[in-house]
Amino acid sequence: MNNSRMNEVLNLVADGKMSAEEASSELTLITPAPDLDFATLDHSRSERIGFPEVVYGLSKTPKDTAEIAARIYDHSGVVLVTKSSEEAFELFNKQVPEAVWEEGPRAIWADRRDNPDLIPGVAVVAAGTSDLPVAREAVLTATLMGCEVNLITDVGVAGLHRLSSRADELGEARVVIVVAGMEGALPSVVGGLVKAPVIALPTSVGYGVSLGGVAALLAMMNSCAPGVSVVNIDNGFGAGYQAASIVGATWR
Amino acid sequence: MNNSRMNEVLNLVADGKMSAEEASSELTLITPAPDLDFATLDHSRSERIGFPEVVYGLSKTPKDTAEIAARIYDHSGVVLVTKSSEEAFELFNKQVPEAVWEEGPRAIWADRRDNPDLIPGVAVVAAGTSDLPVAREAVLTATLMGCEVNLITDVGVAGLHRLSSRADELGEARVVIVVAGMEGALPSVVGGLVKAPVIALPTSVGYGVSLGGVAALLAMMNSCAPGVSVVNIDNGFGAGYQAASIVGATWR
Amino acid sequence: MNNSRMNEVLNLVADGKMSAEEASSELTLITPAPDLDFATLDHSRSERIGFPEVVYGLSKTPKDTAEIAARIYDHSGVVLVTKSSEEAFELFNKQVPEAVWEEGPRAIWADRRDNPDLIPGVAVVAAGTSDLPVAREAVLTATLMGCEVNLITDVGVAGLHRLSSRADELGEARVVIVVAGMEGALPSVVGGLVKAPVIALPTSVGYGVSLGGVAALLAMMNSCAPGVSVVNIDNGFGAGYQAASIVGATWR
Amino acid sequence: MNNSRMNEVLNLVADGKMSAEEASSELTLITPAPDLDFATLDHSRSERIGFPEVVYGLSKTPKDTAEIAARIYDHSGVVLVTKSSEEAFELFNKQVPEAVWEEGPRAIWADRRDNPDLIPGVAVVAAGTSDLPVAREAVLTATLMGCEVNLITDVGVAGLHRLSSRADELGEARVVIVVAGMEGALPSVVGGLVKAPVIALPTSVGYGVSLGGVAALLAMMNSCAPGVSVVNIDNGFGAGYQAASIVGATWR
Amino acid sequence: MNNSRMNEVLNLVADGKMSAEEASSELTLITPAPDLDFATLDHSRSERIGFPEVVYGLSKTPKDTAEIAARIYDHSGVVLVTKSSEEAFELFNKQVPEAVWEEGPRAIWADRRDNPDLIPGVAVVAAGTSDLPVAREAVLTATLMGCEVNLITDVGVAGLHRLSSRADELGEARVVIVVAGMEGALPSVVGGLVKAPVIALPTSVGYGVSLGGVAALLAMMNSCAPGVSVVNIDNGFGAGYQAASIVGATWR
Amino acid sequence: MNNSRMNEVLNLVADGKMSAEEASSELTLITPAPDLDFATLDHSRSERIGFPEVVYGLSKTPKDTAEIAARIYDHSGVVLVTKSSEEAFELFNKQVPEAVWEEGPRAIWADRRDNPDLIPGVAVVAAGTSDLPVAREAVLTATLMGCEVNLITDVGVAGLHRLSSRADELGEARVVIVVAGMEGALPSVVGGLVKAPVIALPTSVGYGVSLGGVAALLAMMNSCAPGVSVVNIDNGFGAGYQAASIVGATWR
Amino acid sequence: MNNSRMNEVLNLVADGKMSAEEASSELTLITPAPDLDFATLDHSRSERIGFPEVVYGLSKTPKDTAEIAARIYDHSGVVLVTKSSEEAFELFNKQVPEAVWEEGPRAIWADRRDNPDLIPGVAVVAAGTSDLPVAREAVLTATLMGCEVNLITDVGVAGLHRLSSRADELGEARVVIVVAGMEGALPSVVGGLVKAPVIALPTSVGYGVSLGGVAALLAMMNSCAPGVSVVNIDNGFGAGYQAASIVGATWR
Amino acid sequence: MNNSRMNEVLNLVADGKMSAEEASSELTLITPAPDLDFATLDHSRSERIGFPEVVYGLSKTPKDTAEIAARIYDHSGVVLVTKSSEEAFELFNKQVPEAVWEEGPRAIWADRRDNPDLIPGVAVVAAGTSDLPVAREAVLTATLMGCEVNLITDVGVAGLHRLSSRADELGEARVVIVVAGMEGALPSVVGGLVKAPVIALPTSVGYGVSLGGVAALLAMMNSCAPGVSVVNIDNGFGAGYQAASIVGATWR
Repeated sequence: MNNSRMNEVLNLVADGKMSAEEASSELTLITPAPDLDFATLDHSRSERIGFPEVVYGLSKTPKDTAEIAARIYDHSGVVLVTKSSEEAFELFNKQVPEAVWEEGPRAIWADRRDNPDLIPGVAVVAAGTSDLPVAREAVLTATLMGCEVNLITDVGVAGLHRLSSRADELGEARVVIVVAGMEGALPSVVGGLVKAPVIALPTSVGYGVSLGGVAALLAMMNSCAPGVSVVNIDNGFGAGYQAASIVGATWR
Repeated sequence: MNNSRMNEVLNLVADGKMSAEEASSELTLITPAPDLDFATLDHSRSERIGFPEVVYGLSKTPKDTAEIAARIYDHSGVVLVTKSSEEAFELFNKQVPEAVWEEGPRAIWADRRDNPDLIPGVAVVAAGTSDLPVAREAVLTATLMGCEVNLITDVGVAGLHRLSSRADELGEARVVIVVAGMEGALPSVVGGLVKAPVIALPTSVGYGVSLGGVAALLAMMNSCAPGVSVVNIDNGFGAGYQAASIVGATWR
Repeated sequence: MNNSRMNEVLNLVADGKMSAEEASSELTLITPAPDLDFATLDHSRSERIGFPEVVYGLSKTPKDTAEIAARIYDHSGVVLVTKSSEEAFELFNKQVPEAVWEEGPRAIWADRRDNPDLIPGVAVVAAGTSDLPVAREAVLTATLMGCEVNLITDVGVAGLHRLSSRADELGEARVVIVVAGMEGALPSVVGGLVKAPVIALPTSVGYGVSLGGVAALLAMMNSCAPGVSVVNIDNGFGAGYQAASIVGATWR
Repeated sequence: MNNSRMNEVLNLVADGKMSAEEASSELTLITPAPDLDFATLDHSRSERIGFPEVVYGLSKTPKDTAEIAARIYDHSGVVLVTKSSEEAFELFNKQVPEAVWEEGPRAIWADRRDNPDLIPGVAVVAAGTSDLPVAREAVLTATLMGCEVNLITDVGVAGLHRLSSRADELGEARVVIVVAGMEGALPSVVGGLVKAPVIALPTSVGYGVSLGGVAALLAMMNSCAPGVSVVNIDNGFGAGYQAASIVGATWR
Repeated sequence: MNNSRMNEVLNLVADGKMSAEEASSELTLITPAPDLDFATLDHSRSERIGFPEVVYGLSKTPKDTAEIAARIYDHSGVVLVTKSSEEAFELFNKQVPEAVWEEGPRAIWADRRDNPDLIPGVAVVAAGTSDLPVAREAVLTATLMGCEVNLITDVGVAGLHRLSSRADELGEARVVIVVAGMEGALPSVVGGLVKAPVIALPTSVGYGVSLGGVAALLAMMNSCAPGVSVVNIDNGFGAGYQAASIVGATWR
Repeated sequence: MNNSRMNEVLNLVADGKMSAEEASSELTLITPAPDLDFATLDHSRSERIGFPEVVYGLSKTPKDTAEIAARIYDHSGVVLVTKSSEEAFELFNKQVPEAVWEEGPRAIWADRRDNPDLIPGVAVVAAGTSDLPVAREAVLTATLMGCEVNLITDVGVAGLHRLSSRADELGEARVVIVVAGMEGALPSVVGGLVKAPVIALPTSVGYGVSLGGVAALLAMMNSCAPGVSVVNIDNGFGAGYQAASIVGATWR
Repeated sequence: MNNSRMNEVLNLVADGKMSAEEASSELTLITPAPDLDFATLDHSRSERIGFPEVVYGLSKTPKDTAEIAARIYDHSGVVLVTKSSEEAFELFNKQVPEAVWEEGPRAIWADRRDNPDLIPGVAVVAAGTSDLPVAREAVLTATLMGCEVNLITDVGVAGLHRLSSRADELGEARVVIVVAGMEGALPSVVGGLVKAPVIALPTSVGYGVSLGGVAALLAMMNSCAPGVSVVNIDNGFGAGYQAASIVGATWR
Repeated sequence: MNNSRMNEVLNLVADGKMSAEEASSELTLITPAPDLDFATLDHSRSERIGFPEVVYGLSKTPKDTAEIAARIYDHSGVVLVTKSSEEAFELFNKQVPEAVWEEGPRAIWADRRDNPDLIPGVAVVAAGTSDLPVAREAVLTATLMGCEVNLITDVGVAGLHRLSSRADELGEARVVIVVAGMEGALPSVVGGLVKAPVIALPTSVGYGVSLGGVAALLAMMNSCAPGVSVVNIDNGFGAGYQAASIVGATWR
């Protein structure tokens, strides 16, 4: 968008040389151009979609990760870094002593906000203990967004009585995240038991033609139970975020 | 599960030969065994997950489709057949004159229930006119489940001003289904604009390495916008169902 | 293998010019060479692996199919043609009036043998009605091989109570074939319920990233339940054949 | 974007209650909202990227195709429909007698504009006669955009002398589109001969592990010659469009 | 399932306020809910499918592996950990001095049960020496389940006389596991020689387009010999387990 | 290459204004430029690689196919069209009454040359009758190139005695083409029996995860027998051509 | 090509025994044969396609890389090594003290040429900071080829206002390289905003079904915006080279 | 095969109780059973296919590799280990001081046989220096089998004059191995230049969608030049072996 033209138009309106209607017509034809500094950008994001930028740690140097995290924390009072490294945590921890390192999901977080009342309704169901690190990324994300999360573990499809014994809890959830690797069958089973929407979260647990989680993802995509949607393999953050937004939680 | 053992246990309790506590302990150890007829099964489903069985028409003969649809309609007062054939519709239509054929999504439906108040909050956004048949399957599903759906079309990423002019409407949605084929970029853009959860619905529109919609599905799975989950290619029913369940709608 | 050399050796032995031991040593070094005519070949097969050649109909002309089937039937008193065409059946039916056409699996068969006692122990479990044609190919194969087959249908994972009500029957099986398309989750659930070996039989039922049954096949390959092995997509014949061989059935 | 807020702001400026600077700051923070009718949209596109909307015919009904094409032609004086059907052409032809049907690429076009001077510099090189339909889609696109196109055919890598005899012509091109199926080797060879950028255009010509053109596309993506970029399989339109934009041509 | 409702129902029956028949009808409609502790769960599994939980070592920490293994061993008198690490073995070995580490398949096991009579009939055939670690995982599994296993090695298809010299042994088997990497052809050859069911076990031996064992798995899936089913790449445990269940072995 | 510059150089040499050495230096720096007409091109090909251009029929119209075939036949006295249509044959047959249509491989050929002595040494081995059409394309190609071909059929790996009975014939071949679909195991077995090079020719026979012949192709690529190379799926022409070139045959 | 025959022909012409026309006819029939030494080869390349050979570092030893780089630098005064190692740089740096190591793209370069006027018109747009190393390889390549490059970063599709604020700069570009990983949506958005050709450059940033950049590449291939072509994943060099050649830049 | 039955038959013949004809008939019906020791097995292989067993080093421990190599060398006087490790070489070297380690292809070899006259006719052409290690595995294999090999390097398709200058040498070859990674185009170009059969040898050189050599392999499979067959990625041994067998070389 042509910022100078926008300014020109606004000056014409200010000078009475162009009507508000004419200006409106013209401005809608051009693309907007907010030339924002870094901090402004974060504000805008919070306002638009209710969540400060989360730091994706996988392809960043520890130094960059720590620096970006510190700026966000400084501004928002809360920060989450996913798929990070312990080295990045140590750098960040020097600046933010209250920071926490979660070994399972390899996540860094810190939160100095007042604790609001938590919003209930998010359940996270994990098929096996190997799926726990991914499940915990989902739990952490939804919790930081203000949700009370019920984590139910070790309820794989090869022993369904373990799942059915938790049916009451599942029935109370307003959204259920189902975490599974290998054949990825659990979301179909849960989807057949509950009225709430199910977010299927495939993990890379498995070997051979599990293809790093692709087999689980495909199975979930083809679920014969309605009301199941799927996020990327090991994307606990994405599942947790969507679950939180379904129950109406936002970062602030 | 051993039905005869369950009956035995219940008789023992009735006869006072076994306490309720002992019976409870034993019954929880065995898998349940409802030997239901067809109609009972539907009731159970409605109670469990809030939606009578939807008929998946793709691999059924027209005659089977029409018969199954008639039985469900007879029982529930509402029926939806997805990915069906006109021939199946004609057979069904002879029995149910009020039945409707939707050419785009190739769906059959009928609904003789009283119209309840519709639940607002579902928006469906389609990238191009070629994506409309799939979008309409989503709209139809959510509508039959009791939702008021706002359909926004022809707002592809190569002309974003068309999308931004609808931003107000998007902002009001409690869940947004985003339908796109080819590069599947639209859910990322919408996900960056709204607070509501986004259900990405890839379509098979495209050729060459669109791979029948796989390219779009993969793009959606890797969305850099949080709060995006994905359903199978052309699965308008699944997206509509999940959207309805997110806003709290059930079949009845 | 050098047939002439074998004859030479045998003549040397017959003539007393070579000892049986020397002949044995030499003959074991060369590969055997049965120059059999067509009928002999079938005998050999029946003796080796217990089943006359089954005709794979998919890439044969109707005329070739009918002719080959007639020769096998003439010789064995029983014949099975899988994945055939109605046209091939009609040609074959002219020669063999007692021949049967099974519409679902598109199979031709005829059997003029005395009915032996059937061997019990084979159960076939199908997830949905769309999976029935493939399930029936398995049932037909095992039945022709002399098994009594228990077919259990419409017990998909999204409504598990339907499955558990049949648990008694499953518990009596010595081998269970589990037929499913879409997400292919059912074998894992059944594998967790029974002691018998489970043969998972994926079907091409589904669309989008079901990838013509590949998603179901991958899920079954990654089953978290032990004792599950898998055959090719829609290969009801292979599953039925293996199940029959597990309970000790052979063609005759 | 919030249109009503934009109007509010403009009225505040018109009324002197807000300065142009303040208005500029606020307006840059919100997303624009042109609520355009169909015709306006086309104008906007021509202005933004220099080409009216081209109609992608593959997933549209003949009736829709003809109608959309007629509206664009009416407004722009030129229209191109790619991957269409003869039926769509016949419907369009009734309204636009000067319309042309190109059998090879299955394209519809019409152009009533004055002929401007053509811009030289685009060469299209096709490996075999089977690649010609795709090559012609590229030629047609670039020609309608105002380019003079030199088409060189039947110069596959298995007989390179055929290519080298056209080296002079290639040397004069400012951009070369190279069209090939099967092993897709030709762009590498051409890329080693010319200074101009090479657009590689894979075709679906081939069988077996040509995988519908994927083998050619992959080969082109891995070209050892620099200056080669690739478009989708059979995407003659995309290649022609980019070539035209490289030599500076726009639709008008 | 609603446990409290079950208790309510049972109390109603105990109090004579509900008949056993009515209770049976209601209870079959709800899913069971055994709230079992860890040890109980193991018992249940042994009873249901005849094998205590085997520990999958690949995605567990050495500490977790050793702890879980110790609890199972303590309870069952036998334990098997597959795809583990030497570090996990050392931790486990401190608690269980009689534990064994198998370098090839990287398995941990211990067995303090009385030796029952072994069940004969399982043969394991390995194509090459590189396939031995996977073959040994199958042998170990079946042996711990009470089978006498005949291991036949180095009989690849490129030298078939090696295989035919073992034909007598193969003929005696009631089930044959065939282990092969690379082109995975051996199961087809063995399937043509024996009446017993064949479990094909692909290995990741190979390079290039062996694709980590996928080529072998696909070949086995497409075997022209009937009676062949397939398990996941390198899944010696699964093959051994199924073979044992075919000959009727269970853990105890 | 710059033809005019070449002519200039040659004139300078003819005029004694440039030495042969200088000319040689310059000419080697530029790419050659034979501007040949169609007939000349064929001559050049015959001289370079010993075979006139074979017509690939799959993506040509019947009319184009017939015309191109007629021109080649007119010039060379022999022509082969692969993967063609009966319609193309009929058009060609009107011009060339001696033309032959081979239904299996869908090939057109004609040959009016004197019959030379055939070169022995090519064997073609086909696994099943379904593989015969592809095998016959190989036989036809090698025969037209002047080879005497020994076709051995129906010797699949699931009944190896059928193969070993033909071992003498295989031992006499100087090159063996092995044709197989499904699991593609036969080339490995043959490669272990003969000294001659083996050309593996995968076919698209199969279903499910045969993936249109990809499974067979992958298996052949991973053959544990040395001396095996592979051509594209169903590429009987390529295999026959290479076999003929190995025994030293050329078109003339 | 037959060098000796070329010399023979040239001598015949020099000796007046063959006319220039006859010689021309014959020379066009044979393939050229420049037997060049290493340095000559580079010259030839510069003349033909305007760029000295760039060293691809990925599969070379540090020693070989440094040596080859030194020879090119010695001859051309400029050298670029892509995807190299710091070890290779250190070896090269000993010989060429002015050499530079770029950590991000892992590139080595040196340039002792006089600085010419830079050619404007190349813009490089990167979606996220993780894409910067690849973007910088593109910038470096185009810069060394004589272009002035405008790098615009951190303008991903999930926050489009960041992109639109740079619209003026994009509008001035004659070619735009768009760098993105994950869902690869940015090129479609930019392609809808600018008239210039867009080169889409996918990166391997992502996890799960980003498949190492394949998801981004596929999305870009299917862009609904015209004028977009694509290079290999992480191929910053190729994108930079093509962009430079589009604006008319050559190495010298 | 039933060895005891064979002995029985032979004794019957020796005793005159069965005629040679009857014995021949029976023996052809059973599979042979050479129960050979290790050394005998090698002899058999040499006789059958002309090459002692080559050791595939990739999935063997250094100790096993060295031991097996030593036994073969001891027996045959020549040994080749492919894709091995330096550690294995060092162990082998202690026993066989004349052993050689080839760093490029990571091969071990030793040869104490008298040098026979080498068989000419094998050419190996490598596209780039990165392809040399694989090319050298091919050269080494063919050389050890008794061939004189002509290695031509650095003649990639992006600079074809380098290839054409070697055309004389190529024309003299009786078989040409063409080694290339990336786009794998070179075999098509060479196949268009020579009469000899071409063995295409794809390498894993490349990145991104080279997919570890799959792109090159696919391109070679789809070569438009006839007479091209393909071996596995990086399989220099297989290509060298087949080339040697084409020119009639055997190990001895």
